[in-house]
Amino acid sequence: METHDKRVLVTGANGFIGRWAIPALLQRGFEVHAVGRKGVDDGRWTVDGDQPMVDSPLTTHHSSLTWHACDLFDRDQTAALIRTLRPTHLLHFAWYAEHQKFWTSPLNVDWAAASLQLLRSFADAGGGRAVFAGTCAEYDWSHEVCIERQTPTRPQTIYGVCKNSLREVAERFAEQAEISFAWGRIFLLFGPGEHPDRFVPSIIRPLLAGLPAACRAGLHVRDFLHVADVADAFASLLDGNVIGPVNIASGEARSLGRVAEYIAERLGRRDLLTVQSAPASPDNPITLRAEVKRLRSEVGWMPRFSLAAGLDQLMSSFDTSAVKSEIQNPKSKIHFPRAA
Amino acid sequence: METHDKRVLVTGANGFIGRWAIPALLQRGFEVHAVGRKGVDDGRWTVDGDQPMVDSPLTTHHSSLTWHACDLFDRDQTAALIRTLRPTHLLHFAWYAEHQKFWTSPLNVDWAAASLQLLRSFADAGGGRAVFAGTCAEYDWSHEVCIERQTPTRPQTIYGVCKNSLREVAERFAEQAEISFAWGRIFLLFGPGEHPDRFVPSIIRPLLAGLPAACRAGLHVRDFLHVADVADAFASLLDGNVIGPVNIASGEARSLGRVAEYIAERLGRRDLLTVQSAPASPDNPITLRAEVKRLRSEVGWMPRFSLAAGLDQLMSSFDTSAVKSEIQNPKSKIHFPRAA
Repeated sequence: METHDKRVLVTGANGFIGRWAIPALLQRGFEVHAVGRKGVDDGRWTVDGDQPMVDSPLTTHHSSLTWHACDLFDRDQTAALIRTLRPTHLLHFAWYAEHQKFWTSPLNVDWAAASLQLLRSFADAGGGRAVFAGTCAEYDWSHEVCIERQTPTRPQTIYGVCKNSLREVAERFAEQAEISFAWGRIFLLFGPGEHPDRFVPSIIRPLLAGLPAACRAGLHVRDFLHVADVADAFASLLDGNVIGPVNIASGEARSLGRVAEYIAERLGRRDLLTVQSAPASPDNPITLRAEVKRLRSEVGWMPRFSLAAGLDQLMSSFDTSAVKSEIQNPKSKIHFPRAA
Repeated sequence: METHDKRVLVTGANGFIGRWAIPALLQRGFEVHAVGRKGVDDGRWTVDGDQPMVDSPLTTHHSSLTWHACDLFDRDQTAALIRTLRPTHLLHFAWYAEHQKFWTSPLNVDWAAASLQLLRSFADAGGGRAVFAGTCAEYDWSHEVCIERQTPTRPQTIYGVCKNSLREVAERFAEQAEISFAWGRIFLLFGPGEHPDRFVPSIIRPLLAGLPAACRAGLHVRDFLHVADVADAFASLLDGNVIGPVNIASGEARSLGRVAEYIAERLGRRDLLTVQSAPASPDNPITLRAEVKRLRSEVGWMPRFSLAAGLDQLMSSFDTSAVKSEIQNPKSKIHFPRAA
């Protein structure tokens, strides 16, 4: 491997977002060191080259890519890897992310602690630029629009609290350690490989199988971004010098009802969709919008997918017969889409 | 050792506050498991029984006391100790505390991470009640009076940020894990064993040696508490069920000039003291008072030492000839007072 002047360590590289970040980083000329707990993924996803193929994002072989097995909860192992690689950049996605459970899991505390140690090790090894994944759950959701450094933070879950507290320490530490540090706040995202109970697949999958689908909070307005765009935005953020929190979102929020209707119309099953309206609650406000001035103007990034195009991509990635079989036999393994 | 229904693990037990906490906990009927990095202290302090002797607070032998060597930065070692002991209570003082350096040290980040892991391990082992040491540096110092849950937090140093963020995560985690959790916010403290450059010894020591002493910010108002009282307040807090932040302070703030003058008068060296007035600044406001309603009314604790009595105790603990010798030969080892 030739030595690049941009050498990035990516954590959570096997994950929902991380695997899309690899090709985005390679395209930007990074030498990529991808970290998974057991190195490269177990093969549920197909292998491709360095093009960001939406159907099969996991890149396993590339002349500028190396996979590393590292348990980030092991402080010494992590520090040793970083001392050896001496990355110039750090892109940190790894976290506990199991559907629904992540909101309340005590593992959030472990990830906050491990993330602090990771940043310390990166600074000790002379690192220069780090970007960590944050969340819209840091904001006070009683404000309809989330604006970085203006809308107050008021996380209501241990997930949000751990991310927010990690950010506060990391920003302050980075300033002292002369690390350029940014924090991408992710809003809603969707894409291949999502848990079937998440919103977008919870509409697509039953309709594909010819079964009824329900959108329970049709008037709720959210900001969706395709996971490939989320990852690309992070790569772009990392490759610049913007510091502090940056919303990672489209800036074009839509009602869940409208998203569900779009899917139903594209699948020709509008007849099977029921759109209801749920009441607002503090942990599920009617409106949660992201301002994206920082992302657009300072980072200079724009989504490649419109919401419609992103949903189209995702719908086209499903194998209809596999979905039918899984819905009829719900104990079977979750279907992860593969490249055609 | 008989088994008590109150079994406490004390971290930082060799430290400035921790060593005073041991007798206070023993007096309250706790079975005490004291943790130091290398177990019990290196002997700079004298050994006594279980009475809180102000001149020699370190207790090394008592039928209800066990010392343990444990590196709290070692997650597995810490978890193993806690699994073995299964403490019902946890009192956490350990932190990086080197004079002045602690405000800006990156070790604050490591202690935040280690403290999160400590609390996780305590919860996993079935612990019920934890109290951690916080700081007045969490508050927004532009408010003159610091009131728990009312005065905003706005830490300006990485020390304050790490403590404040740790508290936010720990409070939320404890709530979910059904740990009763309190957080004692320490204001100014003084007592035997302080670094000579800290405020109170910086007045006492030169005057004892017959040299001039200067109080540079004579109009600044602060809340002082003798370290024995700080430790006793923590023991009392731990032995109750008050949760959340609690100011650990006297509630009777005094100007630094008045404190310095009291010392000079008691030592009969008012002639050697110069009291100046420094300007206010954001990191050194004129007034920083603690409201102590929670500590007085909810915890039900009162200081044993008045400020005058505490200063008298401290002054009486110095060995004048040793101080003279150290001031004349400043490279010699710092004098730690010993029992007569």
